[in-house]
Amino acid sequence: MGKRKPSRQSLRNLFAQNVRRVRRERGLSQEDLAGLADLHRTYIGSVERGERNISIDNVEKIAKALGVEAVHLLLDSSGGRR
Amino acid sequence: MGKRKPSRQSLRNLFAQNVRRVRRERGLSQEDLAGLADLHRTYIGSVERGERNISIDNVEKIAKALGVEAVHLLLDSSGGRR
Repeated sequence: MGKRKPSRQSLRNLFAQNVRRVRRERGLSQEDLAGLADLHRTYIGSVERGERNISIDNVEKIAKALGVEAVHLLLDSSGGRR
Repeated sequence: MGKRKPSRQSLRNLFAQNVRRVRRERGLSQEDLAGLADLHRTYIGSVERGERNISIDNVEKIAKALGVEAVHLLLDSSGGRR
């Protein structure tokens, strides 16, 4: 009891966290990223909260807007891989 | 003229090809994979033809059913990365 199992995150949440992290590393606001990716700012917000079951085409759009490979946004930056 | 530029594939098509390749490597039919992933056989077929703008949750389901990491299905097996 009280032990946390090392919960394997969903791909969706991993993507959400990576988008937020990389966006901030780039010094971009959600609005900036939305503009670059041709998506809506509120959509970017919901993606970053893991609320959206985002499509593969939009994964690609966001990756391009951030200037990274899509797989980079789907890797577990804590060491593991999905 | 007549020169093919090394067209950078869409993430969707890369995923499509990798799913088909890995499924065949596993000796699975589309129907087998559909059963393992709890998706419909015709859906798997359309994913493998790149017709579906598949969602990230279904990318994860298919990866789990194939026993591979999702990123493995999004890497360009011809050498590059997305």
